[in-house]
Amino acid sequence: MDEVFMKLAIEEARLGGRKTKTNPLVGAVLVKDGEVLSKGHHEIFGQAHAEVNCLKNMDARGATLYVTLEPCSHYGKTPPCADLIVEKRLKRVVIGELDSNPKVQGKGLARLKEAGIDVTYGVLEEDCHKLNEIFHFTMKRKRPYVFLKWAQSLDGKIATASGESQWITGEEARKDANRLRGLTDAILVGRNTASLDNPRLTCRTGGENPLRIVLDSQLKTPRTHALFKDQPTIFYVQEDLGNGPLTETARKVEVPLKDGKLSLKEILRDLYENQQVSRLMVEGGGQVLASFIQEGYADQFVVYEAPLVLGAKGKPSLGDLHYPSLKEAFWSSFKEVDILGQDLKIKGGPECLLEL
Amino acid sequence: MDEVFMKLAIEEARLGGRKTKTNPLVGAVLVKDGEVLSKGHHEIFGQAHAEVNCLKNMDARGATLYVTLEPCSHYGKTPPCADLIVEKRLKRVVIGELDSNPKVQGKGLARLKEAGIDVTYGVLEEDCHKLNEIFHFTMKRKRPYVFLKWAQSLDGKIATASGESQWITGEEARKDANRLRGLTDAILVGRNTASLDNPRLTCRTGGENPLRIVLDSQLKTPRTHALFKDQPTIFYVQEDLGNGPLTETARKVEVPLKDGKLSLKEILRDLYENQQVSRLMVEGGGQVLASFIQEGYADQFVVYEAPLVLGAKGKPSLGDLHYPSLKEAFWSSFKEVDILGQDLKIKGGPECLLEL
Repeated sequence: MDEVFMKLAIEEARLGGRKTKTNPLVGAVLVKDGEVLSKGHHEIFGQAHAEVNCLKNMDARGATLYVTLEPCSHYGKTPPCADLIVEKRLKRVVIGELDSNPKVQGKGLARLKEAGIDVTYGVLEEDCHKLNEIFHFTMKRKRPYVFLKWAQSLDGKIATASGESQWITGEEARKDANRLRGLTDAILVGRNTASLDNPRLTCRTGGENPLRIVLDSQLKTPRTHALFKDQPTIFYVQEDLGNGPLTETARKVEVPLKDGKLSLKEILRDLYENQQVSRLMVEGGGQVLASFIQEGYADQFVVYEAPLVLGAKGKPSLGDLHYPSLKEAFWSSFKEVDILGQDLKIKGGPECLLEL
Repeated sequence: MDEVFMKLAIEEARLGGRKTKTNPLVGAVLVKDGEVLSKGHHEIFGQAHAEVNCLKNMDARGATLYVTLEPCSHYGKTPPCADLIVEKRLKRVVIGELDSNPKVQGKGLARLKEAGIDVTYGVLEEDCHKLNEIFHFTMKRKRPYVFLKWAQSLDGKIATASGESQWITGEEARKDANRLRGLTDAILVGRNTASLDNPRLTCRTGGENPLRIVLDSQLKTPRTHALFKDQPTIFYVQEDLGNGPLTETARKVEVPLKDGKLSLKEILRDLYENQQVSRLMVEGGGQVLASFIQEGYADQFVVYEAPLVLGAKGKPSLGDLHYPSLKEAFWSSFKEVDILGQDLKIKGGPECLLEL
């Protein structure tokens, strides 16, 4: 029966959708005498945990709590759930998987056992883990999961020698690429793309709009551009330019330079810790994509490849990469490839955690 | 019953394999009173036609001849088959498809009818046509069918900035690429590839070795290189260098220059008319591939794409292409794409007639 109730808890966890941001999806089910008394999940980043939502206003004495992730034992944005469980005098707790947060791991479980509660863990552990793959990934690295997207000709070009680029990929591929924006918390472009293309970076295929990020060390994107309007945008700028609002929706955030460029490490740290960005999509241009690859921040990629060739003088899809040898280049692996309309859709990467 | 015997004739035709070169595959079956009296096919380029092989030493009076392709009515390398059929006093001839050679088309059929022979045509026409797709293609254009093969990184590079290129693709892809050499009559490379890589261009996966072709206007490939040995090679050179043997297996053939480069049109004409090359595989380098694309001689392509990126300074897979606009670039279509070992195998082209 444990698996049946854990399955319910997993379903409940999923209701959190993407609103838990950098927090995990967690679901809890309270059961007594084989009957479900209540359910609850972690709903929104920074707010009540699943256990709290599940146990609220319930007489839980002698009942069993099924929870997909180990209850916390520390004071974070909310008090420890393990304490609440003890207080509520539950008889038994069944845990899906242990927390990967080092502040919690094993400690929640220990706290429960200390209090004489019967604890089982590892029920549907794999399914529970799968639910929070991105959470575990980001928790370990303290940075968002990063996926790169670009479009190119069969020979790796994004424009003719004279700069003509619209359109290389077909309608299906462009629509699919736009759909990806609905799967990410934030979308990042460089200053050239922001200035030259004047993109909106919104999801026009039904998904939620991501936070827009521009790497613009000297804040040169024209103020009349779309990125200053309608939706939130963060411009990462160099340290002497200050922090704060630029327009009603846009603001600037300072980061230190590294080798004359904005430090990607610092940007990713800020996105994760201060902007609650768990998934970041990098769209370009070529030099920005290359920087993410060069610094080891390319967890997954999607490349749309069009059935044309533009020759050696065409504009390359990626900027300069500096590898001392072929062996030390960015070697990855392909996960899936399909024909999409006129184009290829190529998916791969060292860590393919998202269905893109 | 006509379809049954035509099917036999098609099977018979296939026995010609690739030995008929620029000639079609043709099969013939002689039938009387529902019984097969004999079979024959066109065996080797320049030698007896299928009808001749089938009717040889046979008393064919009153019999029916099934033949996959319209019997010829002109004197080529052999006398007209239509005359032989008349002479042999056949009662009926069943033809698969009419010849696409304008010297023959409809005339063989007319010759037979004139002589009072009962003629049916169009039996299993599609199957008969499929048998000789490449023949029809080359007959119409008076040049070989050309397919391009190259390997590259995901961003369209074939070597690092410093020239390191071995290996970009994995073992499976390299083996598959070698297998393609067994499917072509000739394989072509440029002078740089010939000189720098010193390739053998042989098929090491069980197929027959193709004729080796080098574009080397000034004949600068070192004489000690593998292409001068063991297997036939043609070096196309500019007009003042003369024709004739270079070694026991290599010889030079003069072609005029066009815009300072060997005329591809003349080379293809020579390959088709004088060297009986029906299928040509172009392997590189990048500038040679680009020339074939630019001049409209890229009927099909196979690209092996490896899961690494080398950045803008890597060596491009294709040389310069000169297109006035994006619209006028080489647009083609993808036919099939698969993951092969670590790599992608991408197939496409404006005319995909070969299973590569």
